[in-house]
Amino acid sequence: MYRTHTCGELRAEHIGQTITLAGWVQRVRDLGAMSFIDLRDRYGITQLLIDENTPKDATEILEQLGREFVIQATGTVRERSNKNKNIATGDIEIEISGLKVLSPSAVPPFTIQDDTDGGDELRMKYRYLDLRRNAVRKNLELRAQMAHSVRTYLTENGFIETETPVLIKSTPEGARDFVVPSRMNPGEFYALPQSPQIFKQLLMVAGFDKYFQIVKCFRDEDLRADRQPEFTQIDCEMSFVEQEDVLNTFEGLTKYTFKNVLNVEVDNFPRMPYSTAMEKYGSDKPDIRFEMLLHDITDLSQGKGFSIFDSAEYIGAISAKGCAEYSRKQIDELTDWVKRPQIGAKGLVYVKYNADGSFKSSVDKFYSAEDLKTWAETLGAEPGDLILVLSGDKAKTTDALGTLRLEMGNRLGLRKKGTYQPLWVVDFPLLEWDEESKRFFAMHHPFTSPKPEDIDLLDTDPGKVRANAYDLVINGVEIGGGSVRIFDSELQAKMFDVLGFTPEQAKAQFGFLMNAFKYGAPPHAGIAFGFDRLVSMFAGLDSIRDVIAFPKNNSGRDVMNDSPAPIEKEQLDELYLQLKKLN
Amino acid sequence: MYRTHTCGELRAEHIGQTITLAGWVQRVRDLGAMSFIDLRDRYGITQLLIDENTPKDATEILEQLGREFVIQATGTVRERSNKNKNIATGDIEIEISGLKVLSPSAVPPFTIQDDTDGGDELRMKYRYLDLRRNAVRKNLELRAQMAHSVRTYLTENGFIETETPVLIKSTPEGARDFVVPSRMNPGEFYALPQSPQIFKQLLMVAGFDKYFQIVKCFRDEDLRADRQPEFTQIDCEMSFVEQEDVLNTFEGLTKYTFKNVLNVEVDNFPRMPYSTAMEKYGSDKPDIRFEMLLHDITDLSQGKGFSIFDSAEYIGAISAKGCAEYSRKQIDELTDWVKRPQIGAKGLVYVKYNADGSFKSSVDKFYSAEDLKTWAETLGAEPGDLILVLSGDKAKTTDALGTLRLEMGNRLGLRKKGTYQPLWVVDFPLLEWDEESKRFFAMHHPFTSPKPEDIDLLDTDPGKVRANAYDLVINGVEIGGGSVRIFDSELQAKMFDVLGFTPEQAKAQFGFLMNAFKYGAPPHAGIAFGFDRLVSMFAGLDSIRDVIAFPKNNSGRDVMNDSPAPIEKEQLDELYLQLKKLN
Repeated sequence: MYRTHTCGELRAEHIGQTITLAGWVQRVRDLGAMSFIDLRDRYGITQLLIDENTPKDATEILEQLGREFVIQATGTVRERSNKNKNIATGDIEIEISGLKVLSPSAVPPFTIQDDTDGGDELRMKYRYLDLRRNAVRKNLELRAQMAHSVRTYLTENGFIETETPVLIKSTPEGARDFVVPSRMNPGEFYALPQSPQIFKQLLMVAGFDKYFQIVKCFRDEDLRADRQPEFTQIDCEMSFVEQEDVLNTFEGLTKYTFKNVLNVEVDNFPRMPYSTAMEKYGSDKPDIRFEMLLHDITDLSQGKGFSIFDSAEYIGAISAKGCAEYSRKQIDELTDWVKRPQIGAKGLVYVKYNADGSFKSSVDKFYSAEDLKTWAETLGAEPGDLILVLSGDKAKTTDALGTLRLEMGNRLGLRKKGTYQPLWVVDFPLLEWDEESKRFFAMHHPFTSPKPEDIDLLDTDPGKVRANAYDLVINGVEIGGGSVRIFDSELQAKMFDVLGFTPEQAKAQFGFLMNAFKYGAPPHAGIAFGFDRLVSMFAGLDSIRDVIAFPKNNSGRDVMNDSPAPIEKEQLDELYLQLKKLN
Repeated sequence: MYRTHTCGELRAEHIGQTITLAGWVQRVRDLGAMSFIDLRDRYGITQLLIDENTPKDATEILEQLGREFVIQATGTVRERSNKNKNIATGDIEIEISGLKVLSPSAVPPFTIQDDTDGGDELRMKYRYLDLRRNAVRKNLELRAQMAHSVRTYLTENGFIETETPVLIKSTPEGARDFVVPSRMNPGEFYALPQSPQIFKQLLMVAGFDKYFQIVKCFRDEDLRADRQPEFTQIDCEMSFVEQEDVLNTFEGLTKYTFKNVLNVEVDNFPRMPYSTAMEKYGSDKPDIRFEMLLHDITDLSQGKGFSIFDSAEYIGAISAKGCAEYSRKQIDELTDWVKRPQIGAKGLVYVKYNADGSFKSSVDKFYSAEDLKTWAETLGAEPGDLILVLSGDKAKTTDALGTLRLEMGNRLGLRKKGTYQPLWVVDFPLLEWDEESKRFFAMHHPFTSPKPEDIDLLDTDPGKVRANAYDLVINGVEIGGGSVRIFDSELQAKMFDVLGFTPEQAKAQFGFLMNAFKYGAPPHAGIAFGFDRLVSMFAGLDSIRDVIAFPKNNSGRDVMNDSPAPIEKEQLDELYLQLKKLN
């Protein structure tokens, strides 16, 4: 037996007991007459005491110890003279009677502390040491707790967790698949699933009624900061439901998880049409923790001789509370900020609504105080506020203004961590026009149902058709999305037609799903949450990387075990493959 | 709203209520003056009634209906005159006021009934219809229930479920890896994990203390009846534990799951050394639901002039209760059975211990009744029993005799379904000699710890070294196995040496694990259960295929969606790959 207790377990009530602990040496403090070892494991830290009463062989072992040695210590629990209120075991210490090194340690490449001196790259290379740090391990414990909470809620609500295959069929539509050559079927490949979409719809055809799965998905995309080639979804599907049934169920799941894991009550979840989100927040994932809405002032500001505005499709503004005092330098800096390529605005017009009720703007030449007052009224601005105006192409300008809104929210401290404001964005467009290929793409995916009242528009004005599609957004982060599915094979065929598939192409790619629909498909709808992102939100982190035990870097590499890696020629031969010469 | 209730929900207490149901038409019975529809969903079957009071439009729809149509029915719950005790809703029926077809169905290729007329191949091609059958869906519901039960137990016992990567590094040791070409790293490949072995050991180095995961694993092997290229494990690892700690924990898990899911109490789990299992049961996974032990009668039966026995390394026997009455024909048939290539015995010697106390054997020429009596005494045989004897090479003969024992157990009805007899087989050999490559292989894997008292034998007689390795066996089925791991980098280096790795090869393949062990590795041990097999045992099935939603066939194909499949040349180009010409 290696231990009688963990390092987080002993309390005053254990005083006098003889116990054995095992763990890692966090640090050793030598005070001359006595020495202390902080012994650490997953559960906490316990102080070990070595003094003149300690047997000599234990004292000798003390001298060999370094940070991160794994040791086993036996001794008596006693009251500390100097209690430590910061740790749960702070009332006691262990007077050592026996000490043993279970496993020595080389000097670690960085300190195993919340505030480590290790850089990102070094920590990834030695991820198994990085994971020893409390802060990192806590994120993974949180992840496990959340997964179990989600599973408990969905299981109790009648969902059947069903594993769908990882080795599936490649479909060129959508993002790029990872493929897996089949040795038993030479020249043929499996693909790894980007999502279990088709399988979960087949489970509905199969009468499973309510399906879920916490499942790994894969996308071979060029990776941005917050993307990983493998990621985890909470994937769900329900039969005989309408949109509101799905929304209510997953509202329940979200509330339950917040309450159960963070002990946070989240409010009801407003529904906001996509069009409102775009017009009022300049984003399909609005952060509604603060107002500062976008206002269209096109009509109010054209025809006054300011040619930039007069030629603009759209002029929009936000009002930043209490920012009228911004200096010239601050305004210049904001102007530079909106002109960065990521935002792409041509310039920034400001209007200071001074505390004394006067106006000072960068367009005073064209607009009277009267004119500016109408802007202020439209925006609900008050003396002391700063109005910021962007103009140009409507889509790009609302987008830029939405980003500026978030930036001003940050600067004003309106995006408070620990406050959670969820909402459902609904009524997404069904289709997106792609200028390059001159065709429509499905905004969500090809199985998403149009709103019944918009079906006629499929023939006349497909771009106007709204979908029964929805996203859950919390604090400006898209947590998940889904849709009501098409369950009628004729409507599905029409949808493929609008998307430019020939019947043959549609059949080759999705034939078995359309075939399944011929045998009595129930109405069904579903949703998927990005689990990595949900966990990182719960953990208060900006990146998903720290909630993944062994993440990959931006080149898709695991720097710890140096993979991917070349494979043996025999392996390639068995797969009937050869490498092309690289340039 | 598609339904107010499910098809399994309505009882006598609902009589008089107006309700709406939705589901699949199981069958329509036309009795002239009235018709009945059996409406089915996941939750049950409810009888719908159409008679002279039914509105005409509903009656008209009735005429279009066929099996597996999806319909919605509104009506009033009323008491059945003819109650059906076989179904939970058998007290009531629905007098229909409205009927609607949600989705028509073509005639299904086989009947959706427990006793279907569909063959295996057809059912796999239309798996989404096969899954509609209660018997099949129940297996998947059982699977989900078991997974949740396992997760609850392990979570409550302090295990952290941690997802390990699916895209990992290929290691040539062990079974064949599936590989995944990396587009971002041309010429390089990921592998899919055969198990998360290395990652879970790294999590122990990281101080996670108790890890588990229900996880998909992959092996590119030629498939036998009960193998799938992707399969699911309950994978676990614990720190600061010895073998008995792991055994007790997973005994607890097994008992909990049996109790919680099947309401079955399983007894304590005996520990049996591998050597005993081989000698007494001729198997490393003994079915201990019945005795009929193997007995070594070599010493008793040599030197009596029977040259086949005299030249045999081993002579072993079992005694089959009450089988002395076996006819000549039955004995001949058994003899043919043991001579089949799968068993490979050269012949079968029998001794009938007749009810009157006399003996009749196939070797009466060489052995007196006195001789045969000593055999019977050794075997504990009684008048009326049949003694069956095999001889030859010891390993092959015990194996054949073990198989014969199981066959006799089947014939005598001693292997009762619904009875569960678990045991731990312990003290496996550490190494296995491979005659072909003239080297030792790790029987479990290269990280398995030898028994401390056997470590010296590593230098002198490696084949004799026993491992701290263990298997859980229930009813003759290996449910899982694991081992105490090596956590000392020197012992690990020695182990690689015994396995014939050069230090360079060991470093190239397992360098990052050995490196990790330099920074304070805790003593640790683990185990993995085959989840598919555990579920199939709980379901009372012989194959794992029916507890997998979308299994592959013996060529690794999904016949439903016809994968694997060729991919586009563009996809290959992006991966810097080309196909070799097939012969």
